[in-house]
Amino acid sequence: MDSFDLVITNGICVTAGDIAPYDIAIKDEKIVLLAPSGSLADANATRIIDAERGYVTPGGVDCHVHLQEPAMFGKGTSSDTYETGTRSAIAGGCTTIVGFAPQQKTEPSLLAALAATHLRARGNSYCDYGLHLLVGNPSPQALSELAALRDTEGVTSLKIYMTYAALQLRDDQILSVLLAARGHRILTMIHAENGDVLTWLTSQLEAASLFAPKYHATSRPPILEAEATNRAIALSSLIANTPILLVHVSDPGATLRIRAAQTAGQPIFAETCPQYLFLTRDDMDGPGFEGAKCVCSPPPRDKESQEAIWTGLRNGTFTILSSDHCPFDYDDGESGKKTCITEDFPVGRFKEIPNGIPGIETRLPMVFSSSSEGRLSLTKFVEVTSTNPAKLYGLYPKKGSLIAGVSDADVVIWYPEGKDRKGLDMTITNGMLHHATDYTPFEGRKVGNWPRWTVLRGRVVWDRDGGGVVGEKGYGEFVKRGITSYMLEFS
Amino acid sequence: MDSFDLVITNGICVTAGDIAPYDIAIKDEKIVLLAPSGSLADANATRIIDAERGYVTPGGVDCHVHLQEPAMFGKGTSSDTYETGTRSAIAGGCTTIVGFAPQQKTEPSLLAALAATHLRARGNSYCDYGLHLLVGNPSPQALSELAALRDTEGVTSLKIYMTYAALQLRDDQILSVLLAARGHRILTMIHAENGDVLTWLTSQLEAASLFAPKYHATSRPPILEAEATNRAIALSSLIANTPILLVHVSDPGATLRIRAAQTAGQPIFAETCPQYLFLTRDDMDGPGFEGAKCVCSPPPRDKESQEAIWTGLRNGTFTILSSDHCPFDYDDGESGKKTCITEDFPVGRFKEIPNGIPGIETRLPMVFSSSSEGRLSLTKFVEVTSTNPAKLYGLYPKKGSLIAGVSDADVVIWYPEGKDRKGLDMTITNGMLHHATDYTPFEGRKVGNWPRWTVLRGRVVWDRDGGGVVGEKGYGEFVKRGITSYMLEFS
Amino acid sequence: MDSFDLVITNGICVTAGDIAPYDIAIKDEKIVLLAPSGSLADANATRIIDAERGYVTPGGVDCHVHLQEPAMFGKGTSSDTYETGTRSAIAGGCTTIVGFAPQQKTEPSLLAALAATHLRARGNSYCDYGLHLLVGNPSPQALSELAALRDTEGVTSLKIYMTYAALQLRDDQILSVLLAARGHRILTMIHAENGDVLTWLTSQLEAASLFAPKYHATSRPPILEAEATNRAIALSSLIANTPILLVHVSDPGATLRIRAAQTAGQPIFAETCPQYLFLTRDDMDGPGFEGAKCVCSPPPRDKESQEAIWTGLRNGTFTILSSDHCPFDYDDGESGKKTCITEDFPVGRFKEIPNGIPGIETRLPMVFSSSSEGRLSLTKFVEVTSTNPAKLYGLYPKKGSLIAGVSDADVVIWYPEGKDRKGLDMTITNGMLHHATDYTPFEGRKVGNWPRWTVLRGRVVWDRDGGGVVGEKGYGEFVKRGITSYMLEFS
Amino acid sequence: MDSFDLVITNGICVTAGDIAPYDIAIKDEKIVLLAPSGSLADANATRIIDAERGYVTPGGVDCHVHLQEPAMFGKGTSSDTYETGTRSAIAGGCTTIVGFAPQQKTEPSLLAALAATHLRARGNSYCDYGLHLLVGNPSPQALSELAALRDTEGVTSLKIYMTYAALQLRDDQILSVLLAARGHRILTMIHAENGDVLTWLTSQLEAASLFAPKYHATSRPPILEAEATNRAIALSSLIANTPILLVHVSDPGATLRIRAAQTAGQPIFAETCPQYLFLTRDDMDGPGFEGAKCVCSPPPRDKESQEAIWTGLRNGTFTILSSDHCPFDYDDGESGKKTCITEDFPVGRFKEIPNGIPGIETRLPMVFSSSSEGRLSLTKFVEVTSTNPAKLYGLYPKKGSLIAGVSDADVVIWYPEGKDRKGLDMTITNGMLHHATDYTPFEGRKVGNWPRWTVLRGRVVWDRDGGGVVGEKGYGEFVKRGITSYMLEFS
Repeated sequence: MDSFDLVITNGICVTAGDIAPYDIAIKDEKIVLLAPSGSLADANATRIIDAERGYVTPGGVDCHVHLQEPAMFGKGTSSDTYETGTRSAIAGGCTTIVGFAPQQKTEPSLLAALAATHLRARGNSYCDYGLHLLVGNPSPQALSELAALRDTEGVTSLKIYMTYAALQLRDDQILSVLLAARGHRILTMIHAENGDVLTWLTSQLEAASLFAPKYHATSRPPILEAEATNRAIALSSLIANTPILLVHVSDPGATLRIRAAQTAGQPIFAETCPQYLFLTRDDMDGPGFEGAKCVCSPPPRDKESQEAIWTGLRNGTFTILSSDHCPFDYDDGESGKKTCITEDFPVGRFKEIPNGIPGIETRLPMVFSSSSEGRLSLTKFVEVTSTNPAKLYGLYPKKGSLIAGVSDADVVIWYPEGKDRKGLDMTITNGMLHHATDYTPFEGRKVGNWPRWTVLRGRVVWDRDGGGVVGEKGYGEFVKRGITSYMLEFS
Repeated sequence: MDSFDLVITNGICVTAGDIAPYDIAIKDEKIVLLAPSGSLADANATRIIDAERGYVTPGGVDCHVHLQEPAMFGKGTSSDTYETGTRSAIAGGCTTIVGFAPQQKTEPSLLAALAATHLRARGNSYCDYGLHLLVGNPSPQALSELAALRDTEGVTSLKIYMTYAALQLRDDQILSVLLAARGHRILTMIHAENGDVLTWLTSQLEAASLFAPKYHATSRPPILEAEATNRAIALSSLIANTPILLVHVSDPGATLRIRAAQTAGQPIFAETCPQYLFLTRDDMDGPGFEGAKCVCSPPPRDKESQEAIWTGLRNGTFTILSSDHCPFDYDDGESGKKTCITEDFPVGRFKEIPNGIPGIETRLPMVFSSSSEGRLSLTKFVEVTSTNPAKLYGLYPKKGSLIAGVSDADVVIWYPEGKDRKGLDMTITNGMLHHATDYTPFEGRKVGNWPRWTVLRGRVVWDRDGGGVVGEKGYGEFVKRGITSYMLEFS
Repeated sequence: MDSFDLVITNGICVTAGDIAPYDIAIKDEKIVLLAPSGSLADANATRIIDAERGYVTPGGVDCHVHLQEPAMFGKGTSSDTYETGTRSAIAGGCTTIVGFAPQQKTEPSLLAALAATHLRARGNSYCDYGLHLLVGNPSPQALSELAALRDTEGVTSLKIYMTYAALQLRDDQILSVLLAARGHRILTMIHAENGDVLTWLTSQLEAASLFAPKYHATSRPPILEAEATNRAIALSSLIANTPILLVHVSDPGATLRIRAAQTAGQPIFAETCPQYLFLTRDDMDGPGFEGAKCVCSPPPRDKESQEAIWTGLRNGTFTILSSDHCPFDYDDGESGKKTCITEDFPVGRFKEIPNGIPGIETRLPMVFSSSSEGRLSLTKFVEVTSTNPAKLYGLYPKKGSLIAGVSDADVVIWYPEGKDRKGLDMTITNGMLHHATDYTPFEGRKVGNWPRWTVLRGRVVWDRDGGGVVGEKGYGEFVKRGITSYMLEFS
Repeated sequence: MDSFDLVITNGICVTAGDIAPYDIAIKDEKIVLLAPSGSLADANATRIIDAERGYVTPGGVDCHVHLQEPAMFGKGTSSDTYETGTRSAIAGGCTTIVGFAPQQKTEPSLLAALAATHLRARGNSYCDYGLHLLVGNPSPQALSELAALRDTEGVTSLKIYMTYAALQLRDDQILSVLLAARGHRILTMIHAENGDVLTWLTSQLEAASLFAPKYHATSRPPILEAEATNRAIALSSLIANTPILLVHVSDPGATLRIRAAQTAGQPIFAETCPQYLFLTRDDMDGPGFEGAKCVCSPPPRDKESQEAIWTGLRNGTFTILSSDHCPFDYDDGESGKKTCITEDFPVGRFKEIPNGIPGIETRLPMVFSSSSEGRLSLTKFVEVTSTNPAKLYGLYPKKGSLIAGVSDADVVIWYPEGKDRKGLDMTITNGMLHHATDYTPFEGRKVGNWPRWTVLRGRVVWDRDGGGVVGEKGYGEFVKRGITSYMLEFS
């Protein structure tokens, strides 16, 4: 234990439970020692990083990431591959992602869908990754594969949709999925928006010749999310209160419904995303077609809703904060991208704008900065962006914390507070990001900090002042996941 | 760093954030190293304890403890001194308590009250201790002393009462206390029961010749607590949402009111106690006068209420779980004890039974056992019994966690799960407890575990299988406390 | 004004607003005079009825009655024709009903469905009647007929279903109906149970070989109604808060959801039925197949739910109380009746039991009796069983009150309170009822009163002590209805 | 029955239950006949009034009127005597009031207080009147007089205060009042504002030299009303859910609390007043000292609160709408009036401004006009301003309706809608009012209608176009009241 691969000294370490200065020693990809601050400054180590009183946090865990997936409607695929998406991840302090293996409605097997996604991911990732199954067809075959998914493949979560023609499940199908999932202690993630209502509202808007990007928000009013959320919770209660996760919650009404279920002791978990903390629907009403850059689902809401989402983060209604990274290029070079302007539709058609925005790289810096400004405690920041995702998705304690002998040495070192921030550029531009997408919806926003170093399994993979992305494609490994800690608690 | 005073190897360590196996090294009263499990088994240390895969938790922090205080009414004082109370604490895994310095209505100064309590505590304590001021008279002088209390005396919390003739403050007095407390970032604890209603109901019961112990519960119906809780929250909102702590919450209605405030983002904190998890009002309806043993305020409620309190612990409504240790002898050797049977009152008079029960020693074993059985996660157990009390009362990170170089070496080592529990006696009897009180309300209850060793600042003070209480009176130190972490967050 | 057709003297008259003694004079089918009690005892009238201090109420208005309709599933039709159903109505004090004209999914036209129902009703009715359209196919043609329905046909309300394969509309279809209905100020009644969930639960029960009648309730848990109710309210809010009526509400959860909408000022109306006040799910667990007699949808709930429904009646959550008379014979003479016992299914199959019970004749006596016992004020009784239905469905003030010169002379005269009740038989038996159904679910229940005389447009049609049904088939007229009073208020 | 004193023909009559055209015949102070519209146009009657299709409503019943009472604080008495106040009442369509007999804290007897008030009222009233007891001292003697009050004096309601030093009762005193009142089925009205908090906030404002009238609102924030309302409901629940009436509710939070109690089935009644429908707190921020004209308690709130109060009227949360007429002159001719400007306090001192405004005459015209514009149905208008007050206070059916042979002939005839309004002056000025107060807070407001004739017990007492006040002082009689109809329902 006397020689280490890497030592991080002089940092203020933050976990979900604690915030305090101590040193961290790393060997063989693991954290091996936590010691008094400064005590390892002269340790026998291959490399010693002086954090200079900057915060040190566990590597970010982002469990809602879409890479190289076909668009739900329209054409083409999302603009980031496993390579470019994970490169962007580590530059933003994220060391583990969980992506989706999408099963089409025409495909009866989940295992086949998984295999196809493995082909896209294997050998291409800069960070560690797991996979969820995105269930488009809960066929008997599909549900019969859950045991193998869990036990052989290390896939312990599913995602289903209450919207999108290509994926929408009816309530009886949802019950079948929940029942099967419960039997195998697999966690079900639910995209809760009422698809039938959405379709109807879209038709009405189109019939009224309202095509501009901003009508995307009109076609998805908050009640559409709150209603579906209420329904999803009702369905969970029918399957003996099986745990579910409501993904990307944006609406205060939905938040209150979730909170009420938690108040009653039901195992309802919820996720929100930076777009609901930093964007509003006004951002979809930009000049020309610019608003399309902020089109995602659910759409950003209003200022009051942002406040409600912050409150929900603080009071524990939201268990996790993910990026829902699902980017599409804005420029209309080829089909399937954001821009859907044609001669007939000079402002485009909101219903053909691919839903989704990039955000994997900006997630941690934006939220960390807000935390420094007091919107969230730093322990809560770590909890919702790293520890809880790891626990919820069976990655813990390998991921999501800083435990000696147990946790992978996945660490983010931030710049110290104060004026000695090493010339930190405070303004986000797409040029500084590492995804393959041609824009960021957060262009021009100022942040207060950024990951200075990202360490993945003991190896520095991002060194902002010393080369940027210094990790390698393929260093990221597929992680077989266990049962969600919460599922263990509730069943 | 090569030689240690104490090493704990082979334990499964639990903090508020994490649960995982690792070893702990201790030197000079501090935790100095966290290392892979088993790696320190052969370390150079004065003493090495093999936890044998038992859980290792931070020492318990109990911030609601009444020692050597005069009875609120009736005669005499509570039955535990600082010596006997803190002896009982360490035998139950509790390494830090915060007691009360009671200011009488006739006493204008808080500092004087504090000085008097110091005299009782100093040199007598087996565990570390802090003090709250119990404000009976919020005189201008008293409120002017808050700065000194905080800055010089390390007292950063007050307690006030909405009931008990001797202590009850009117709403305008409460506002004055809250305003002054907010100005100094001092936390206000509130005993929320409507005193005027209580007085009236007691008169009605006495007029109807209903004197038995069980009428204690009738005199304090749940609405009396829920009403006062609602009022306290309203008063907090008038002082710019100043943080308050509702102590010993027992009623689901009060719990929901607190939860609603938290949902709205108000800084309302709440405490509950083992008596509301393990006793019911039926326990006050024992044979003869036995029920008096369970008389405390608020009274234990019904079974459904117990479940609601457990739910509130799980979903985060309750920030802390304390003992509210406030014991009075049952046997009527002298005045001021529980028994108030006279010739005129052969079943006693409930209104003269001193309110309060012993519980400092049983708090952790009872709740830990329930956690092992799945009622609470173990991280949540640590959070509400140690980490959060430390954070709430300005003791953190010195107390309440296991941070290398930062935390005091206050640790509890539990028996390993399974059949190799070293013949653990599963049944609580008063004979096995270390307080000076002649009964426990939990007589005969089975528990699943008990602190095997308690370590206070690196020293084993409780060794269940090797001498019992092995610490010494006076080893416990007074701890000056800082500002509550929560107050920092919210102001 | 000096000679009358009929005078009712010495009664205590009750309307929705008032309760007081006065005399009523009737001429040419109308109420023409209200005068001091006893003042018309010697009036010049063809007939004078001395009410002997009995209560006098407006004739009952029952706007949820299924007659001669095909079963939703299974085979055959409901057991009452317009003749037998309306005969039963007048014997129970009901002078106006609104039945349903069912449109099949395969039928694009509402007018055609209406015409077919007119054929069944015309010339056959003992009481006045209107018709709702039951929309199984909201085709463009159907929705284009709404203006004609309202203006030419006097049909100003529709009913749609969120359940039953044969009728269930998807949420987008419901929105289309609501939008069209709002445009014509037509009221939409909604049967709110989640059909997809029901189908799934039924499959699960059948797969577990649970076929007995009592599993009907298991297949329709309360959450299934509360969920659909919440969804229906959400859909209404999307159509600019268009008024809707939730029919036959049985569940306290649904009731609270409705109440919350009313609290917020939304125009959400609700109906309940005697089966939710007087039956419980235990009634479906009778000996042998007896439980089938109480199978209706939603199913009767538990005792606590009954209390909640009574509370909802008292506090105004429910606007109307209807019978939902929808009877099927119990004895298996032919297909399509309640009994579905076969060799393979010796306890029947709950899913094949036609849903619905008789109740048109017992509705008023049972609820009036409860009102006399204090469960409901008598003015509220009149309000929810006569005045409000008349207002809600555009029959007011012709129906539903006792207004001089305005209201049809539709009156019920009850037996006086006290021992001089003319030997009133207090026990309901099917033998005393006038429907064509072979049972009543209320067999053996005691009531405290019964209509002594029923007067329809000035003519005594029911004389309990003097011939029973003395009206004639065909005296009942079709009533063209106007816009709901509530729709006028809210739009 | 052939000759009448008065006939009202051709009106559209509105009661709490019905709205329809019919004629009314009056004889010997009573309504004696309701007949088809126009049928009495040529009746044999001393006087025939042609309502010309104008609305005809029962005379207004205003049960919250302060006349000739000493100011709660400051000096002097309210500016209207029984003579001037009731003169104002009839000119505004109000035919019955219930005033207060104030018992001082130093006066042990209620009967004595009642006798003193009788002296002020007897022979001076233009309209009928009853009296409540305003209990300042719930002494044993006072509570022992309740039976006599009810049985001999016809006084069946009490009012108590949770605020104002001169009158504030503690919670235990309130319980004593509620218990005694319940025993005699006497209704308790409660002024719910937290007096201790009010005192404290007032001190804080004065300490900060904030004296202007608008700080009256700051000293009484909404939470102060919501808190006390919650407390009052809790106290009612402790006395076996005894009915209480929360008077002059202004705050949406209090309204929701009341609504929640009603939802749960508790007998909680609530009153609101025109000042909470038509004024806002901005009206207290007028030029100079003008704002003092709108000082009443609770203070008017904001626009959103007004909307919430309207919603509460529509959905039935509020049972009655009263004026809380409690006027004080604005001009500082003598002591005890609104103006409290001195050399030391050039903008006055809000705490010395007598609380209360005039409103007895404007109540009906303002709310009727809003009803005509669709804010409230006309039946609801009659219900909350006449019928429900009569029922709630034991005046029904003598007052509050139009029942043949039963109701006093108290009627208001309004101008017909449309352009033939007889030159109706649409703007309120103090000059047109008949009180003795030197201002109205509604100066300059437009109304859409005004009582054209007011009839009290068959006699025209107000003829707007024919002499104005044509009734006589002393024609108004004291009315002994019975038990509240609601008390009968709930006990």
